[in-house]
Amino acid sequence: MTPEQILLQELADTWHSTIPLSAFMQICPRRYDGIQFEVSAPLEPNINLHHTMFAGSIYTLMTLTGWGMLWLKQREAVVEGSIVLADANIRYHAPVTSAPLARVRWPGGDLSALAGGKRVKQSLTVELICGETLCASFSGLYVSLPGH
Amino acid sequence: MTPEQILLQELADTWHSTIPLSAFMQICPRRYDGIQFEVSAPLEPNINLHHTMFAGSIYTLMTLTGWGMLWLKQREAVVEGSIVLADANIRYHAPVTSAPLARVRWPGGDLSALAGGKRVKQSLTVELICGETLCASFSGLYVSLPGH
Repeated sequence: MTPEQILLQELADTWHSTIPLSAFMQICPRRYDGIQFEVSAPLEPNINLHHTMFAGSIYTLMTLTGWGMLWLKQREAVVEGSIVLADANIRYHAPVTSAPLARVRWPGGDLSALAGGKRVKQSLTVELICGETLCASFSGLYVSLPGH
Repeated sequence: MTPEQILLQELADTWHSTIPLSAFMQICPRRYDGIQFEVSAPLEPNINLHHTMFAGSIYTLMTLTGWGMLWLKQREAVVEGSIVLADANIRYHAPVTSAPLARVRWPGGDLSALAGGKRVKQSLTVELICGETLCASFSGLYVSLPGH
């Protein structure tokens, strides 16, 4: 495994062992290149009564994608912080009819304050793609508190 | 069982049989008096790595509470509509440390257009209470499409 794959495996293990819902949803970190991070989930455990992806599952997948990006960036910066979501906004554009991909780009941000014992706030925008269709847009404000 | 209890049981069955995530989360409609609707979920299947309620679970519980209110109101008005969430906003105020209650009040709204084959839009505000603390606020725009 590449260092990147090892890191994504550790992130998946962290999610699945501490957040039962993420294991039930089969949320899986897919790709990270230092700038963009992608996460997937299969449709089956996440369907609604219209047989498309449930709004709650879509939101949860996108929330964790943003959370994971910040977790990865903290690892890179060798700082520790306990990441929580402060607020979020989501728009559903189109039904999700097959396994989607959630995608976030790192907009830049300085995490070094964590090393000095100060909290960091980071806004992130996540897109949900199904095939070539943009199905949902999410923006969240994350706060990372110094220490574990 | 009272007519209200029968209706809430039918709503719970609908959720659990068509949305696997709602069954995993053990989401349970609690009380409905025609104006206010309350829904609960236990903490255990919904924890995060801080051992409080996971942000995705909080959102999902609140989303379904709003959805359920519209479903109940459609039943009362004897109209049929397929309810979807268009967009939503959530603010997390405090960690949820024990089983919370999500609560929505019907703000008034006319669903009769559904009988005429027209869609209905309805904004709903949901609060999440834990003990006496307001832990999260949600507002969502729901759209109901005529027919099943």
